[in-house]
Amino acid sequence: MTWSATVLTIQPDMFPGPLGVSLSGKALAESAWSLETHDIRRHATNRYGSVDDTPAGGGPGMVMRADIVAAAIDAVERRDRPVILMTPRGRAFTQARARELAAGPGAIFVCGRFEGIDQRVIDGRNLEEISIGDYVLSGGELASMIVIDAVVRLLPGVVGASDSLSEESFEQGLLEYPHYTRPQVWEGREIPEILTSGHHKKIRDWRLAQSLELTKLRRPDLWDAWQRRHGVAPTKH
Amino acid sequence: MTWSATVLTIQPDMFPGPLGVSLSGKALAESAWSLETHDIRRHATNRYGSVDDTPAGGGPGMVMRADIVAAAIDAVERRDRPVILMTPRGRAFTQARARELAAGPGAIFVCGRFEGIDQRVIDGRNLEEISIGDYVLSGGELASMIVIDAVVRLLPGVVGASDSLSEESFEQGLLEYPHYTRPQVWEGREIPEILTSGHHKKIRDWRLAQSLELTKLRRPDLWDAWQRRHGVAPTKH
Repeated sequence: MTWSATVLTIQPDMFPGPLGVSLSGKALAESAWSLETHDIRRHATNRYGSVDDTPAGGGPGMVMRADIVAAAIDAVERRDRPVILMTPRGRAFTQARARELAAGPGAIFVCGRFEGIDQRVIDGRNLEEISIGDYVLSGGELASMIVIDAVVRLLPGVVGASDSLSEESFEQGLLEYPHYTRPQVWEGREIPEILTSGHHKKIRDWRLAQSLELTKLRRPDLWDAWQRRHGVAPTKH
Repeated sequence: MTWSATVLTIQPDMFPGPLGVSLSGKALAESAWSLETHDIRRHATNRYGSVDDTPAGGGPGMVMRADIVAAAIDAVERRDRPVILMTPRGRAFTQARARELAAGPGAIFVCGRFEGIDQRVIDGRNLEEISIGDYVLSGGELASMIVIDAVVRLLPGVVGASDSLSEESFEQGLLEYPHYTRPQVWEGREIPEILTSGHHKKIRDWRLAQSLELTKLRRPDLWDAWQRRHGVAPTKH
């Protein structure tokens, strides 16, 4: 079965957009995954196509209606796929969740706009709330593209060499080591000598040491977790 | 001065893409910000337009060349803008950084593809490495769109009511309270009574309590930080 994404949105014209070119676009053209959008406005109940209303209790902005969003969700074939709401209130999206999603049949994405969506549809349809980071976007569309892009490149055959994935950031719980390529000298800066030594074991050790050092310096949280997994008591910061 | 984004990419056709519609698209059409792309391939030195080469020390994938990426950066007018490299090794992008960027003249984004870019151009051009989250994308293009979208909506006049921004997730360091709108009852679920009471002070208190509860439950990290800012010793988890 092809991994399939369904996106519920009031901006179906945003898709496939960036997902239609380059790596994910090539995979889409080759049917390594499928994408459909479902316009939430189809379920509007008035002639203006409104999907939102003013927030109960007052305040700025508009809130997407529970009945209309639920009708859109119910109109889509589930096929055992999780229904995901992209929201800054959600659980952090991680490479581990990307792997889980890639191993499943696909995902249905609900894209909020305006102030957000009525809490009752989140509860009533048991939506999985996912956040791609601690910042606020104008809608869930770009966020769902991020999740889809992260997942699609993990699908079998999408990225050429399968081991191209295993040394990346987060796959070992570490940040990736620095890369170098020709020219040998650029603006007086040389490629580190070890990398041109041809000594594979030493190169591997150097890269791991660089990953560890960078992770320790920039991401004490990942560093502590890595130490714990390797049976070392976390350092005090 | 208009806030201006310049994106260095080998996929200029991805832009404006989602940034050309809806809120950011409207703001772009109204010249509240400007967007230009610069094709890194213009600086390729061979007739195939290659911008990458095999990694020094071996391994999968390809690395973008320092000389070519640097030539692209140097070809763009800086105008006091930070030069940002979108990479999972970078510092976490946050709402606070979005605010800082929105207060500045704009930003130049370098979008990596393949395995990454040569470390020497990161060092040699003093790139600010920013990560939008702990996952790996097929390139920096979508990541730069995320940053641009988060920034553009903070520019003056882009989101209608200025106070629509102040109660959002992260603006107080808390997750946002739940939203409700009509209908009053949906699938047997009622809007919380307090919200239809008309009692503004009680509504405000209820919303803050909901934000605090949700943040405590889902984001102990933000909760600890909030307590510290409010002079409370963080709770033990």
